[in-house]
Amino acid sequence: MEPSTETNQEQKEEQEVVTPWEVSGKDGGKIDYDKLVDRFGCQRIDQSLIQRVEHLTSLPAHVFLRRGVFFAHRDFAEILNAYEKGDKFYLYTGRGPSSEALHLGHLIPFMFTKYLQDAFKVPLVIQLTDDEKFLWKNLTVDECRRLARENAKDIIACGFDISKTFIFSDFDFVGGAFYRNMVEVAKRVTYNQAVGIFGFTGEDHIGKVSFPPVQAVPSFPSSFPHLFSGKDNLRCLIPCAIDQDPYFRMTRDVAPKLGYHKPALIEALFFPALQGETGKMSASDPNSAIYVTDSAKDIKNKVNRHAFSGGQDSVEKHRQLGANIEVDIPVKYLSFFLEDDAELEHIKKEYGAGRMLTGEVKQRLVQVLTELVERHRTARANVTDEMVDAFMAVRPLPHMFD
Amino acid sequence: MEPSTETNQEQKEEQEVVTPWEVSGKDGGKIDYDKLVDRFGCQRIDQSLIQRVEHLTSLPAHVFLRRGVFFAHRDFAEILNAYEKGDKFYLYTGRGPSSEALHLGHLIPFMFTKYLQDAFKVPLVIQLTDDEKFLWKNLTVDECRRLARENAKDIIACGFDISKTFIFSDFDFVGGAFYRNMVEVAKRVTYNQAVGIFGFTGEDHIGKVSFPPVQAVPSFPSSFPHLFSGKDNLRCLIPCAIDQDPYFRMTRDVAPKLGYHKPALIEALFFPALQGETGKMSASDPNSAIYVTDSAKDIKNKVNRHAFSGGQDSVEKHRQLGANIEVDIPVKYLSFFLEDDAELEHIKKEYGAGRMLTGEVKQRLVQVLTELVERHRTARANVTDEMVDAFMAVRPLPHMFD
Repeated sequence: MEPSTETNQEQKEEQEVVTPWEVSGKDGGKIDYDKLVDRFGCQRIDQSLIQRVEHLTSLPAHVFLRRGVFFAHRDFAEILNAYEKGDKFYLYTGRGPSSEALHLGHLIPFMFTKYLQDAFKVPLVIQLTDDEKFLWKNLTVDECRRLARENAKDIIACGFDISKTFIFSDFDFVGGAFYRNMVEVAKRVTYNQAVGIFGFTGEDHIGKVSFPPVQAVPSFPSSFPHLFSGKDNLRCLIPCAIDQDPYFRMTRDVAPKLGYHKPALIEALFFPALQGETGKMSASDPNSAIYVTDSAKDIKNKVNRHAFSGGQDSVEKHRQLGANIEVDIPVKYLSFFLEDDAELEHIKKEYGAGRMLTGEVKQRLVQVLTELVERHRTARANVTDEMVDAFMAVRPLPHMFD
Repeated sequence: MEPSTETNQEQKEEQEVVTPWEVSGKDGGKIDYDKLVDRFGCQRIDQSLIQRVEHLTSLPAHVFLRRGVFFAHRDFAEILNAYEKGDKFYLYTGRGPSSEALHLGHLIPFMFTKYLQDAFKVPLVIQLTDDEKFLWKNLTVDECRRLARENAKDIIACGFDISKTFIFSDFDFVGGAFYRNMVEVAKRVTYNQAVGIFGFTGEDHIGKVSFPPVQAVPSFPSSFPHLFSGKDNLRCLIPCAIDQDPYFRMTRDVAPKLGYHKPALIEALFFPALQGETGKMSASDPNSAIYVTDSAKDIKNKVNRHAFSGGQDSVEKHRQLGANIEVDIPVKYLSFFLEDDAELEHIKKEYGAGRMLTGEVKQRLVQVLTELVERHRTARANVTDEMVDAFMAVRPLPHMFD
């Protein structure tokens, strides 16, 4: 609903579809992120913005920022300007809990959000859209609520600070001030506008039409009176994958009409499937993704058998031509999760020149992923039901800005 | 959504419009209730049903039942069958709080609901749809909530039993189990179905599309876990004016899919405007209605100046031809509020024969209305904010079936 945004109709003509529920490139190819940024009307994150983050936080930028995983934004510069002047903000992210086990793509926004929380020392609200999953998937309400709690454990395992973090399930938390804001938003979006943004049809049920305000209102401080009472002027920054942009275009259109700042966004690429970079990973194909529940053996098998390689067919040819690291999934995955910049550069150079073989790169990736997944699994095993209750308790957070 | 129901489109072709937001007869004339009952697919209340009520409650039927004010129903006979076997039910009614002062038409469902509560000794939930009024009118959320509380005072003044009555505002109460049921309903109604039932257009905001489930779910016992936990099989009876039927056609379609009884309905005629019987009274024309805040002088002026008379132009002609009591508003109003059947019959006979003059009938009406309004005003003056809080407290009602 901002000037340069597109409608779903336009997307379809261009054959590239990016909505919160469907992501597919033109002719089954890669997502053209440059085009997407232009069409959505958001901004690229450039080097000077990253340097400002480093300067303001006195920390090196997170690997996802350095390497362009979080590559686009809306009003992130305004957040930094305000922060520099001593103004606070809060973080809002979320997850639709449709499956028991998360895959690595699901962890990316949470890993990045944890970094932002630590670096800027700000409060965080995490919305579990169990209602959305009920509306879009063939699951019962109770099953969606159960999955929300299970997913909360994985989220908590990412290391969020309980003194600064409130996690909530829509099915449990919607009501009161939150519901009042939902209705305020709903009154300011016509059905035709919603169709333009989300592509609903007349045969869609009205639950789908009703949902966007639910995802919109965590952007407004007044939706959380136990946290932000009297702080209606507090800014909100939303780390998310870029497919969530439609929700927040709608929200940014409405926010000033309700007297709030437009929420700022910092937006990520999609994490590619093992089979190659043509969209998001699919929860319905277990071999398309590494899950946080996968064993070391699972990870080894998946990477070796399914990770799309840019290497050549024979060792001879590979030594001669080198790997196409632009399409190589092991290199792509390492660029997300291998923290050592020098080692990553070394691998790219050697592999691209044919001096390193696919098997060697995959072996290093298996090592990196096994460590990551093992670390997550240990952390998750330590998350008790009491801890979930504690993070989800509707309570003030007196130390949220400390 | 039941077989014999109509769409708004059909209504418009017939030029009679009855929706929850618009009521107007064909060519500005009277509502054809017989046609309406056929089109909506509900049932007329006949003499034998009224006799069953009297038999089961050991009380004379309420004047609104005897005189056909509550004239139509859905599954009311099933409620009586179940009651006879010892099964309980609960009552659900409501009000959209769009104005400070109620008029007499607003009191009708509450006066009748009080009778039902007393006669059947059953619990009652009263929904104040402050969210609906915010969505349809140009009022702020806070103003709608304030009006909800003010209206609650008028409702409490009707004499409901606090040990059996729960009053709630949507803006305050929506959430938890209630919200979960809203989403369950929303998932089972398509946008096209909603358009067919309510006549929404693409330029309507999505708040309107989202609202029907809010009015639907008080029909399900599980929306009130503090009252009906574990009683999912409890039947619900809804006393309302017939313009609310579309909401409950939708609800009755969905109820069995969620494992609940279809809510039963008992439906009233519209209370006519002082100017004549062409629809509902309009809150925007203060001279079209008697308000519970009107003074004795206001009532006298309004009745004498604005009440449409079926009497003749001159006394001579009147003595000769008599009054047309079919269109006479004072007679109509007396048939709602004069309890004495014999006196009403006497007035109709004498006035119709020209032996009684319009002035005399109006004088009697002014007396009846002044008493009614005076009684209400005294009762309302005794309703404190603490009583409102007590009725609206989310609490169990251990004596609700006593």
